[in-house]
Amino acid sequence: MRVLIIGGAGMIGRKLAARIAGDGVLAGRAVAAMTLHDIAPATPPPDAAFPVTVETGDLSEPGEAARLVAGKPDVIYHLAAIVSGQAEQEFAAGYRINMDGTRALLDAIRQADYRPRFVFTSSIAAFGAPLPDPIPDDFMVAPLTSYGTQKAICELLISDYTRKGFVDGYALRLPTICVRPGKPNAAASGFFSAIIREPLAGQEAVLPVSDDVMHWFASPRAAVGFLVHAATLDAAAVGPRRALTLPGVAVTVGGQIEALRGIAGDKAVALIRREPDAFIQTIIESWPRRFDTRRARDLGFQAEGSFEAIIRVHIEDELGGG
Amino acid sequence: MRVLIIGGAGMIGRKLAARIAGDGVLAGRAVAAMTLHDIAPATPPPDAAFPVTVETGDLSEPGEAARLVAGKPDVIYHLAAIVSGQAEQEFAAGYRINMDGTRALLDAIRQADYRPRFVFTSSIAAFGAPLPDPIPDDFMVAPLTSYGTQKAICELLISDYTRKGFVDGYALRLPTICVRPGKPNAAASGFFSAIIREPLAGQEAVLPVSDDVMHWFASPRAAVGFLVHAATLDAAAVGPRRALTLPGVAVTVGGQIEALRGIAGDKAVALIRREPDAFIQTIIESWPRRFDTRRARDLGFQAEGSFEAIIRVHIEDELGGG
Repeated sequence: MRVLIIGGAGMIGRKLAARIAGDGVLAGRAVAAMTLHDIAPATPPPDAAFPVTVETGDLSEPGEAARLVAGKPDVIYHLAAIVSGQAEQEFAAGYRINMDGTRALLDAIRQADYRPRFVFTSSIAAFGAPLPDPIPDDFMVAPLTSYGTQKAICELLISDYTRKGFVDGYALRLPTICVRPGKPNAAASGFFSAIIREPLAGQEAVLPVSDDVMHWFASPRAAVGFLVHAATLDAAAVGPRRALTLPGVAVTVGGQIEALRGIAGDKAVALIRREPDAFIQTIIESWPRRFDTRRARDLGFQAEGSFEAIIRVHIEDELGGG
Repeated sequence: MRVLIIGGAGMIGRKLAARIAGDGVLAGRAVAAMTLHDIAPATPPPDAAFPVTVETGDLSEPGEAARLVAGKPDVIYHLAAIVSGQAEQEFAAGYRINMDGTRALLDAIRQADYRPRFVFTSSIAAFGAPLPDPIPDDFMVAPLTSYGTQKAICELLISDYTRKGFVDGYALRLPTICVRPGKPNAAASGFFSAIIREPLAGQEAVLPVSDDVMHWFASPRAAVGFLVHAATLDAAAVGPRRALTLPGVAVTVGGQIEALRGIAGDKAVALIRREPDAFIQTIIESWPRRFDTRRARDLGFQAEGSFEAIIRVHIEDELGGG
């Protein structure tokens, strides 16, 4: 079993590589080798019992996809993308990397004439307001960002290339990942993590939206669990609709704050500074709030059961359990 | 008002050009010029009171889209596509023409830095089984053909390019057009027209499916009406979701036959020869049957009210009313 992770230097890519290195198996088969590809060099997990190759390059460049699939990896994770904000600012670059890059990869697989398992990270950004609450599995995809459009197009390509027998593909619509480790970033969704991560580290965090904003979350650990589980799915049970909205926790900002209070007390909560930002509030209101993810749950995908559990994952995985 | 019709040599393109030539106006403005583009030369309508230019070329060839929009036409109809059966057989050609061609056109408009009205013919092939009955406007797009996938991707591109202000685009999901004039063709859906057209002409027609198969139809005249109406829509009333499922008539094959009997009698019906074909029956069962097209109806799109009316349109427009 050879594994290729495209986007291996990203937050989820690193954690997925570490998980596979720790497990030593994927979908019940021993892992013989793993390749981590990204624009910048990924750091291989230190404890892998199999060889890990680090490759750098731009998937949308001619020949890059063919080079990556030449060794016919059995499972290909495609996590690489430019993020929502950048795809909105840099229209052509977003389509080139997020859409053409994925298509180049699918075409390289088709031309390599073998049928790997292909796991792609899509996003709940494929959905745009107005939305029902909860959003059922068969609701229309009508994105309100270029990033969401590019993800939705990749979903369609994956289902069609799968139907034609060129690949065995799955597009996983991840919830917003929370708590994201590391520095605050400029993403409109950044505060969802910051209001937990910063107070736990004794730092102030800014909350730009009202407490009744509801959103859909899973931990980085749950996201890695989704990706590992996708390698085990029974293709026939999934059928031709290869985009799956994954389970998550629906919670309001107020609920996030109460979960933080329960775990870290009033002193942590006092570090959250309310600075309403009408621009961010408007963006967030067009986002999905909560889903009925029956299909994914029936297929065995599991997320946390509460936002408290999401905070505890952060404490265990990023703060040494303290 | 300058009009460009891409796919101007096709059945709908020819009828649209004739309608615009007859009207002399489009969306309340006098038409000053029209260009008909296709792979093969289109025949200009004989009675146009404005100049009609005929262009030939392949939209997916480099530079072709830019050449077409250089004159900044106010309304662009993009009807050109390779059909469902061919897109399924010729995978790469389907994506190149149906997807890359449309994208090239949208990018050429973006780079020409103006904002024309852009009307694209999508298809109910964007939907695939299992489907509710009727299918609501907000149901998921999950095609089961490469053609349907390519149309669905174009819909997403049109909504995103519109949202970004590069174009004022509309993707119209046409019903199956019936009665198609001309020779029988190899399309799996061909019999829906043949069982009406051939008996009206005193010819035998083969019916490969059972009488209880239901499908979704509009006449060629109604299709042209949709395209003309799309040029008049209020962009704000449509909003960001630019794919519209258009009204049609839901009727079973048995209902088609009874409508034919009512108009042309038992002698015509006797020319329909039942030759069940399990392959075609299976294909047809994955197709949409009927829609609730509230959005399009509220926006003023109108189709026939019965299959009898569809047959009468064929008699009036193709058989000289006889």
